[in-house]
Amino acid sequence: MDIKILQQLLQQVQTGELPVSEALERLRTLPFENLGFAMVDHHRELRQGFPEVIFAGGKSLEQIRAILMALRSRTDHILVTRLDSDKAETLLAEFSEAVYHPVSRAMTLSRKEIADRGRGLILVITAGTSDIPVAEEALITARIMGNRVEALYDVGVAGLHRLLAHHELFRRATCFIVVAGMDGALPSVVGGLVDKPVIAVPTSVGYGASFGGLAALLTMLNSCATGVAVVNIDNGFGAGCLAALINRV
Amino acid sequence: MDIKILQQLLQQVQTGELPVSEALERLRTLPFENLGFAMVDHHRELRQGFPEVIFAGGKSLEQIRAILMALRSRTDHILVTRLDSDKAETLLAEFSEAVYHPVSRAMTLSRKEIADRGRGLILVITAGTSDIPVAEEALITARIMGNRVEALYDVGVAGLHRLLAHHELFRRATCFIVVAGMDGALPSVVGGLVDKPVIAVPTSVGYGASFGGLAALLTMLNSCATGVAVVNIDNGFGAGCLAALINRV
Amino acid sequence: MDIKILQQLLQQVQTGELPVSEALERLRTLPFENLGFAMVDHHRELRQGFPEVIFAGGKSLEQIRAILMALRSRTDHILVTRLDSDKAETLLAEFSEAVYHPVSRAMTLSRKEIADRGRGLILVITAGTSDIPVAEEALITARIMGNRVEALYDVGVAGLHRLLAHHELFRRATCFIVVAGMDGALPSVVGGLVDKPVIAVPTSVGYGASFGGLAALLTMLNSCATGVAVVNIDNGFGAGCLAALINRV
Amino acid sequence: MDIKILQQLLQQVQTGELPVSEALERLRTLPFENLGFAMVDHHRELRQGFPEVIFAGGKSLEQIRAILMALRSRTDHILVTRLDSDKAETLLAEFSEAVYHPVSRAMTLSRKEIADRGRGLILVITAGTSDIPVAEEALITARIMGNRVEALYDVGVAGLHRLLAHHELFRRATCFIVVAGMDGALPSVVGGLVDKPVIAVPTSVGYGASFGGLAALLTMLNSCATGVAVVNIDNGFGAGCLAALINRV
Amino acid sequence: MDIKILQQLLQQVQTGELPVSEALERLRTLPFENLGFAMVDHHRELRQGFPEVIFAGGKSLEQIRAILMALRSRTDHILVTRLDSDKAETLLAEFSEAVYHPVSRAMTLSRKEIADRGRGLILVITAGTSDIPVAEEALITARIMGNRVEALYDVGVAGLHRLLAHHELFRRATCFIVVAGMDGALPSVVGGLVDKPVIAVPTSVGYGASFGGLAALLTMLNSCATGVAVVNIDNGFGAGCLAALINRV
Amino acid sequence: MDIKILQQLLQQVQTGELPVSEALERLRTLPFENLGFAMVDHHRELRQGFPEVIFAGGKSLEQIRAILMALRSRTDHILVTRLDSDKAETLLAEFSEAVYHPVSRAMTLSRKEIADRGRGLILVITAGTSDIPVAEEALITARIMGNRVEALYDVGVAGLHRLLAHHELFRRATCFIVVAGMDGALPSVVGGLVDKPVIAVPTSVGYGASFGGLAALLTMLNSCATGVAVVNIDNGFGAGCLAALINRV
Amino acid sequence: MDIKILQQLLQQVQTGELPVSEALERLRTLPFENLGFAMVDHHRELRQGFPEVIFAGGKSLEQIRAILMALRSRTDHILVTRLDSDKAETLLAEFSEAVYHPVSRAMTLSRKEIADRGRGLILVITAGTSDIPVAEEALITARIMGNRVEALYDVGVAGLHRLLAHHELFRRATCFIVVAGMDGALPSVVGGLVDKPVIAVPTSVGYGASFGGLAALLTMLNSCATGVAVVNIDNGFGAGCLAALINRV
Amino acid sequence: MDIKILQQLLQQVQTGELPVSEALERLRTLPFENLGFAMVDHHRELRQGFPEVIFAGGKSLEQIRAILMALRSRTDHILVTRLDSDKAETLLAEFSEAVYHPVSRAMTLSRKEIADRGRGLILVITAGTSDIPVAEEALITARIMGNRVEALYDVGVAGLHRLLAHHELFRRATCFIVVAGMDGALPSVVGGLVDKPVIAVPTSVGYGASFGGLAALLTMLNSCATGVAVVNIDNGFGAGCLAALINRV
Repeated sequence: MDIKILQQLLQQVQTGELPVSEALERLRTLPFENLGFAMVDHHRELRQGFPEVIFAGGKSLEQIRAILMALRSRTDHILVTRLDSDKAETLLAEFSEAVYHPVSRAMTLSRKEIADRGRGLILVITAGTSDIPVAEEALITARIMGNRVEALYDVGVAGLHRLLAHHELFRRATCFIVVAGMDGALPSVVGGLVDKPVIAVPTSVGYGASFGGLAALLTMLNSCATGVAVVNIDNGFGAGCLAALINRV
Repeated sequence: MDIKILQQLLQQVQTGELPVSEALERLRTLPFENLGFAMVDHHRELRQGFPEVIFAGGKSLEQIRAILMALRSRTDHILVTRLDSDKAETLLAEFSEAVYHPVSRAMTLSRKEIADRGRGLILVITAGTSDIPVAEEALITARIMGNRVEALYDVGVAGLHRLLAHHELFRRATCFIVVAGMDGALPSVVGGLVDKPVIAVPTSVGYGASFGGLAALLTMLNSCATGVAVVNIDNGFGAGCLAALINRV
Repeated sequence: MDIKILQQLLQQVQTGELPVSEALERLRTLPFENLGFAMVDHHRELRQGFPEVIFAGGKSLEQIRAILMALRSRTDHILVTRLDSDKAETLLAEFSEAVYHPVSRAMTLSRKEIADRGRGLILVITAGTSDIPVAEEALITARIMGNRVEALYDVGVAGLHRLLAHHELFRRATCFIVVAGMDGALPSVVGGLVDKPVIAVPTSVGYGASFGGLAALLTMLNSCATGVAVVNIDNGFGAGCLAALINRV
Repeated sequence: MDIKILQQLLQQVQTGELPVSEALERLRTLPFENLGFAMVDHHRELRQGFPEVIFAGGKSLEQIRAILMALRSRTDHILVTRLDSDKAETLLAEFSEAVYHPVSRAMTLSRKEIADRGRGLILVITAGTSDIPVAEEALITARIMGNRVEALYDVGVAGLHRLLAHHELFRRATCFIVVAGMDGALPSVVGGLVDKPVIAVPTSVGYGASFGGLAALLTMLNSCATGVAVVNIDNGFGAGCLAALINRV
Repeated sequence: MDIKILQQLLQQVQTGELPVSEALERLRTLPFENLGFAMVDHHRELRQGFPEVIFAGGKSLEQIRAILMALRSRTDHILVTRLDSDKAETLLAEFSEAVYHPVSRAMTLSRKEIADRGRGLILVITAGTSDIPVAEEALITARIMGNRVEALYDVGVAGLHRLLAHHELFRRATCFIVVAGMDGALPSVVGGLVDKPVIAVPTSVGYGASFGGLAALLTMLNSCATGVAVVNIDNGFGAGCLAALINRV
Repeated sequence: MDIKILQQLLQQVQTGELPVSEALERLRTLPFENLGFAMVDHHRELRQGFPEVIFAGGKSLEQIRAILMALRSRTDHILVTRLDSDKAETLLAEFSEAVYHPVSRAMTLSRKEIADRGRGLILVITAGTSDIPVAEEALITARIMGNRVEALYDVGVAGLHRLLAHHELFRRATCFIVVAGMDGALPSVVGGLVDKPVIAVPTSVGYGASFGGLAALLTMLNSCATGVAVVNIDNGFGAGCLAALINRV
Repeated sequence: MDIKILQQLLQQVQTGELPVSEALERLRTLPFENLGFAMVDHHRELRQGFPEVIFAGGKSLEQIRAILMALRSRTDHILVTRLDSDKAETLLAEFSEAVYHPVSRAMTLSRKEIADRGRGLILVITAGTSDIPVAEEALITARIMGNRVEALYDVGVAGLHRLLAHHELFRRATCFIVVAGMDGALPSVVGGLVDKPVIAVPTSVGYGASFGGLAALLTMLNSCATGVAVVNIDNGFGAGCLAALINRV
Repeated sequence: MDIKILQQLLQQVQTGELPVSEALERLRTLPFENLGFAMVDHHRELRQGFPEVIFAGGKSLEQIRAILMALRSRTDHILVTRLDSDKAETLLAEFSEAVYHPVSRAMTLSRKEIADRGRGLILVITAGTSDIPVAEEALITARIMGNRVEALYDVGVAGLHRLLAHHELFRRATCFIVVAGMDGALPSVVGGLVDKPVIAVPTSVGYGASFGGLAALLTMLNSCATGVAVVNIDNGFGAGCLAALINRV
């Protein structure tokens, strides 16, 4: 169900074409339908500015396909995250508009151009090269939600001059996504350099006392810089969504 | 050091009144001065849109007073957080422009009106009454940074109808700060209802397996709703700052 | 050993047919027998209202088969949990009354109809589709223990309207099993809507700071709603048993 | 707001005395009122079978008094938990119907007899004497909710014969609350002896590796006995509520 | 190096056959020799009453074989723990005196009868069948160290009557090894029934909040019964050793 | 109830003086009596070789006094642990046989000489001076249970020569209690030097990453030395009990 | 016992003035003496380059005084750490050479000038002003061990320009001690700027998810910069010692 | 970029051959170049005394090869860590100067002799044979950075005499790397024996309550010996680097 369809419905109510009771009924019954195993929520675009996203982790190929089918007819843009390459291959053959992004393991299905809906630039930064898959998930998410996004990778705090060399780029961005594993110190440094919102994404990159990203997570939560908030470990998608909401006109 | 002073300086460089080398020197030396125990960073307004904030926790009355003295002559608005009431009493007698907010244990010192610099409304929500001190810290922080802020307290998920009754207020806000201890479930619910950024603040309210706010923190990091990011436990100040940055024009 | 056999025995004691000493001896020696590796407890039906359940996790096919053999001759209903599909296949060929439930990896063996022994309806609810396997284990457990059970899946708090749409169904149930991973917030919301016992089941669904279900577990333990108790992570079986005990006449 | 008042209201709607729109309005506006700091939820009796309970921990005397005032005029029974004795003393002087229970630090305010609304007996058991305060909170909660409750204290597993001596009492109960700190092993043993619901309450009693009740909590979550569910550490109130809901006719 | 060889050496010193300096030298140089990767400590039998034990976990077949070769010529009994079955197969072909115990994954190499060196009986008890591999490691360890050992498996606290049925056997033992995963409650119960040392062994058996045996470990450390001490999770070998030391004449 | 009284009772049964039914009745009713808040277990001496020990932590002076009264008339030796000095002072005035040990905060009440019931010497060792209170609790416990005990304090691994200087003393002991906080390394070293049982007691001595004794606890559980088992943090009493059981003839 | 005294002793052995046996005896007996509660280790200067340091935390005034008395006659420099100001006051009156440092709560007792024994400069850096007490403990420790030390406080990563302004000072140091709480990110940044050893000291400064310094500790252990090692939380003394050992000629 | 190239550049500035502005520009632009996925930092040799090290964990063969290509033309020595043997095989065929060290999974590429740049000997010690891979990583790292290194393996504290036998070797070293898993007690013992810096490396060797090296890590952080600092679990590379920095002239 598209925002335009809803607008039509409400205008019909305003002009008297549609009785309130019937409009109410349609709104109540339309938003989701039962696929047996999952309620697909068509209302979400309304509430969240974006159609249902499919978290493919732990779902079977059959489940993903069925949800895609249900969503496809009513929305222009779909995002599938955490999709294994073998499942992706099968779906690419079945859904012609599908594009698979192997680094981030994301698939996008767009039936028309993505319109630019953001106020400015979102900048995605990583501390190391191993953090790139998570960063790419954020980048793809923010792009399909209608934002201009640029990436700056491998500029961790242990080589501070690499980060500082891009100081100028920082001035142009309206929102930052900073992705880091291991010591997770990069968001603190970025947060101290800019006066824009910084979304910190800890990654599970590391070993030993990184405890699967816990060390980076705690570092970011304790950041001394102001304007920093944190999402779940490896949650590039969540960071991309939030950046899109912040960047909206 | 005010933004206007810096603008003057740069204009003088542009017009040739000030040689570049001297301008460089002034910029290098001005920003902070050594008080012996703490470097007060006058540059911060430049980089962060707000003067130095004093985290009073763990600082002696003498240290707080000295930093206040150093800051007062160069900035219009100062915020002191985590200030005990007994220290506050002494400072209120010494700094005539100081106002103390006992619930949040914050003190504000403003020498002129706070100009509205935000795009819209920031809504601060709490799950319970015990979360209010943290919420008030966020509210005061966002206000002194030039934002309109409203509060909606004690609307936790165990009595969902109380929250839903304010659904309309939700449409008016551009950014949400949701404060909750114990199960920390409220940001997930709010995040599912709105398509605006939600800053989740876990509090240390609770007992037993709340482990000083850890339970609420983990809940929020694992929120199924999109558009939610988390700050440190009890970090109302950080939430207020981030909301102000998001709400800026 | 069936409850009826025990009743007979006690009546024989009452009528004098059986000396107390011999009755005592038979009660002492009958209840379990040594299979070499596990003591099968035939007394359990007496004490727990249900025959021995076989937790197949970590047991070999041979062990499971031997326990099944020992139990089969004395009980009408057997439940095997956490049974891999390959082992299930072999057992299906050997035990004609066996039925395998692949989603929950449970096997049931019933030699007669399951009699309805419950007072009302047990409602099993999940937050997401990935929580369904655990929910199904609870559902199958409660059913084989003689209860009417209905399921309501994928109604997590991030899309609250989906849950509220089923408000009416809530009024009909006498006991709720609420299954959720990630933020684990659903039991708090359900607990706030109903005045019936709510059994919360955290699942290991999630990633990063969900720490294998720990986040959901802590959320549920800290629930602000009253009438909520928690079982172990992924313990659908335990939830089903407890619901059956609560629902008993 | 009493259930009877609501019944009257609905009957008036049925007989036509009250228009639907006005009934709707009254239901929407009555349930809570804004005291400035906390929304008192008068609807809760409706949804939860019991009036608002006041968790006094972290609330000032003024806040507790104000909530008591608001609740008192509309409900017959109020329960205040975690109330310090010095605050209790003041309130006892002001509220004539108040009774303070020092062991559990609970206060009850009843303006009429508590009617028995339960199906059977609730049995509260503790492992040690130090667990009694938590057990008493559960006992008082269940009693004010209209249940018959008996107590059996200091029968921990290290002296098993003490527990087994009361085997007969076990047969009479419909629901068990088992309270234990340190190793938290008692609910497993009780759960193995009975075929009734067991609500396990870990306490923070212990030292060293008990980690404030965490050890007992984990033990109970991992109980091998069926029919056991767990509430938060020291949460006697929650256990009492759940037992009352289970024991309801 | 056997105790007897050392006795001979010391007697030679006593009788003057061997100068002190030379004896000192031999003692200093004999006890270990460098295999390049590991120092085999032949002195251990002296200090610990038993030859070097090989912990095969993380060692290659080549390393295990080399250590076996070095030890074999000087000791009568060798124990290899945590040995995978495929490595065992190869070693069985090469070392004729080797015996492999698949349940516990232990291998024993004895070149003469094991003499009984203990004061009494060691009783090894498990809560469930899945705990048997750890129990068997303890049993084999204690046996090769010269003790009489009996086993009592699958008598967990959830079916207390099974345990109590063997009360008599308890009187005969001088030392108990109690092995349990999940809630780890069994050692508390056994410790309360007997007045002999109880060595508690937590196992990693369980799921969810058992956290790899942590729950059982904490339960055992917090045992209310006296006379209970704990070894590492799954450390059957350590329990067997300690029992042997306790049981020594 | 003393062991001798029980022996008399059984001999009377043997000689026919006492019918079995009456003996049974006396055994069933004698062992504990209800003080209202705690069941005092007089049977324990029977099962555990020592009368009830009173853990005074968390008990009021009134509770301790009442238990002492109940125990005093039937047992010769009582041990009170974790008793604050102010409570001790009051009790010393009331119980003439009481002796208070301020370092360990233990009180002993003996009405006759303590008979030596042990096989050999128990050696209590500490790593630092701050570990002494815990060590003294172990020492006093073992002594009142009829054992010879010696102490060797402040011989931590960071000054290894201090430990090794007492090597000879090690040969004389039959059982070791090794008490250490901070890194908890001492039991590993002692365990490697001796072939006797070593009971390791972690203490909460330390700061920072000692996490209240957790670091020492984990070190000891992971000890590479054989023959080491661990009791709870600061549990000197438990160590003393276990050592006494090990040392019994 | 001073190094010079030992040198004399060895020279006397070399020249034949002192028989080896007697020298051995003196070395064996001299190093420590029994004060009843603590073995004072005079050998430590030999092994560690510095006399016994007294960790006053958890020691009574009497214990500290007695150790000071024992040490004072044989050593020129004593360091007491974690000494409360009230105890310090008493000791200052009794030990004329004592100096108390209130910020770090350290006391130093030097009977002669401290000779410079280091190769270069040790630089102590803190992230915030609240980290200064720990930094001062490190500074005082390194100074009394004969090193030149400078301090640079309050230069955390959130205001990176403050740190970078002191880049030149960095070139002069041979070893860095970097002290930080909260996010603990500073050592990573310093480690990336210099090619000298960096000793990272996490502090317990912070709140919420800093978990008493755990967050900073994990950050530092996961530092991406090379040349960084970590000591315990708040362990300024340990950092100062290690820096002194690194800086030694 | 080699140090010599930089020296040339600066000399050209000194002699006037190169204008300052151009020199500045070259320094600003030269240090790193964008490979698309990773910024290779040629400046590091300057700042850290050693070229970029490639952490191969989580990098694809293509990524490793590309970085090697970029580095190879400008540096004489490259170290690759955590390189799987199958990737190593391919790279060995392509890079003729490459040497693979299978135990430590490190690869070194040196185009000229490694010059000795250290002051003395670095001694690498392990507690067990399973710790050797981590120790070898440290050894290889320190060697390629120009240091003399010796190894002493399998001398854990449970067999103290093995360690003490090498006491003499200890006197010769200027810096120690002590590698231990399980109880992690060895660095405390070594730290007590020497007066040189000790770098402690916890390893993930162990099981059960070793929690992947956490136990050893905590032990080392709490070491009672002075002069000990800790690096991340299994971080042999970090220990080798730090030792090299400490050992530099």
